[in-house]
Formats: sequence, C-alpha cells, structure tokens
Amino acid sequence: MKVSERQLERYPIYLKYLISMRDSGLATISSPMIANALTFSEEQVRKDLQVVSINNGKPKTGRDINELIRDIQHFLGYDNAINACIVGVGHLGKALLNYKGFKDFGLNIVCGFDSDNNVIGQKINGLEIFSIYQLANKIEELKIEVAILVTPSNVAQEVTNKLMNAGIKGIWNFVPTHLKVNNDIVVENINMASSFAILNHKLKK
Amino acid sequence: MKVSERQLERYPIYLKYLISMRDSGLATISSPMIANALTFSEEQVRKDLQVVSINNGKPKTGRDINELIRDIQHFLGYDNAINACIVGVGHLGKALLNYKGFKDFGLNIVCGFDSDNNVIGQKINGLEIFSIYQLANKIEELKIEVAILVTPSNVAQEVTNKLMNAGIKGIWNFVPTHLKVNNDIVVENINMASSFAILNHKLKK
Repeated sequence: MKVSERQLERYPIYLKYLISMRDSGLATISSPMIANALTFSEEQVRKDLQVVSINNGKPKTGRDINELIRDIQHFLGYDNAINACIVGVGHLGKALLNYKGFKDFGLNIVCGFDSDNNVIGQKINGLEIFSIYQLANKIEELKIEVAILVTPSNVAQEVTNKLMNAGIKGIWNFVPTHLKVNNDIVVENINMASSFAILNHKLKK
Repeated sequence: MKVSERQLERYPIYLKYLISMRDSGLATISSPMIANALTFSEEQVRKDLQVVSINNGKPKTGRDINELIRDIQHFLGYDNAINACIVGVGHLGKALLNYKGFKDFGLNIVCGFDSDNNVIGQKINGLEIFSIYQLANKIEELKIEVAILVTPSNVAQEVTNKLMNAGIKGIWNFVPTHLKVNNDIVVENINMASSFAILNHKLKK
C-alpha cells in the first residue's frame, strides 16, 4: 500500500500520544478520540490506522491500545534498528551524540566522525569519534547505513561525496544546504529555516 | 495572496541556493535553472517566485539574483528579526544557544531559561540563563515573542502552560510531544521522529 510522506510524518505523532494514553491507564481507544486530541480529521485517523493495523477494534470501545502501539512501531521499523553515525562533532553534533531519544525510533548511533584532531579519538556519551578518513572502513565494519550530517555548510557537499564513496545508503541532513547525491542515496532534510518560515508567517498574520 | 506551508518551506531553500550562486559570481538566474538545481518543477518555481517578486526578469537572462534574494528575505521577514528564548538548557538547548545560523533567518536569541540552579545565572555564548520563574518578567522586558522549547518530554506541557501565562506568542517545539495550546498561540513542531520515519521508509523500499 502506498503511503505519502505527510502520512508517514503522522505515525510517530500517533505513537507518542498513544504511549502517553497507555501510560496513564487507558486500555482501548477510538479514532474520534485520537482525532480530537491531535486535531486531525476523523477520516484521516481512520485511513492512517487502517494502513498499519488489520484489527479495527470494536465499534463502541475502539482499538486495543497496546496492539495499536505495536502495529505502528512495527510499521515504522522500530523493532529493526538502523545503525547510524554523526558526521561533524560541533555543538549540534555533540548534542545529537548525547541525545537519548534516537533509540526510541529505531535509530542506533554507533559513532561520530570529524576532521578536527582535537576531537578525533575522544568519546562522547560512550561513542568514539573517528577521523573522516576512516569513513569507508568504519561504515563497513560497524554496518552503518545512515549518516546524520551536521557539518558546517561550506563542507557539507564535500563530506556528502566522501560518504557516498564510503558506501552510505542514507543521509539525514541537518545542514541548511541542498545536497547533490546519486539516485541510489536517500536524503531527508531537517530544515530549521523552513520550519521557522511557517512559524514566522503565522505569527505575522 | 495565500501561501501554503509547503510553499513557505521552499523559500529558505531557494534563498540558500541563490546566495551560493551569487557568491560564486552569478548576476542573473532563470526559473528553469533554479528548478533543475533544486529538483523542483519549473511551474512550481515560477509560481513560488511570482508570490515574492514583482519583477519577472527578462525572458533570456532571467531575474537579477540580488533583487530576488532581497525579495525572498523581505517576504520571509528576515529584515524584521523576532526575539526568542531557549527554554530548557540541556544538551540540545546548549547546542541551540551556540548555533550561529538563527540570525540568518531573522531570529534573534536573547536568553535561555531553565529550572536547574546549576545552570541558572550562567552565560552560554554570551546569553544569560534565567530561572523559569522569571519567564513573565523577562518575556516582557526583553520583548520575547517566540520560545524555542527543548525541555524533557515529561515537563513540556507544564512549561508550555507557563509560557502561555507569561504572554508568549509562538512556540517552536523541538520536543516530540503534542502540545495543547490556546487558539491565539502559534506552534510549529520540529519532529525528528517524523523526519526519520520518511528516511527509514525510503531506505527499506
């Protein structure tokens, strides 16, 4: 079944909400209740949940909340973690090396890379920082599929080229730069400027 | 003219690309060239640029690149900076206090807030960290419109309530929690789990 990007973005939001409801003692939950809490339309919630879960629950009580949580986690691949590295150990890179939340969504950070000799060889949050020249070796050795790119803008493309040569499969790009990549590489951008443009536009209306 | 969120997200991407092209010596640029470089459709680029810029340029040479940059910056409000604070000075909060890029998109970070006495009173990147109990005073005194929320998940809603009481206008939410806010408050989420869900889905295909 085809799933749109907008739809994919919603599943982690459902999941967070469902886990908080389960933790506060709820055993079953209905689509209208979810729709109301998250300010999505009921139709959208029903469609989204049908994609991930066969069991539609009972008309009155709704779905079993634990089963729905498991179905979404499985759909998102959280039970099949991907190994990733942080590339660029500046302020943001360090913060991401220390971030505990990645595990929750199936991302297993295994190491960092940098070009600065003052950082190479250090451990941050128990994770070793390697030289950028060790990319190819370490990507193979540690079975790294995804690079989280947090370098300065002016070297982002150069480092991306190195990552492609080293056999990376996906790049999660936190640098506000449009990366040129080969067709077989997956890139997803976290663009803070784009997110803030929406906030700012709404504020000024 | 009405602008969609997807459209708003694209303007900072145009801007980054146009600045890099200008800095490499280009004086004029055409919509097809932009479309090709950013892998957007030509029609989309033409429509997007018509919203921000009256001058369509000349059929052969295209638009004046400096004029187009200024028009997009003005449209996004970059010449009219908004004061903001960082709420929650953990690893990510510290990284954001040290991040130099906010200035580039019209966001002026003026201070941080935390509840930890070991952090309160410190300066990070020259910015003072105040107690969460000083929110109302400082938001008024420092004319803060936006709070960048980077607290732990379990206190995010409680802190959001405090921010609303203290008169904040907008919340840029980096916490993976759905915030309940009054109708007059603008919230925009940076949801890392949602972004990664898209990357992960494409990788597994």
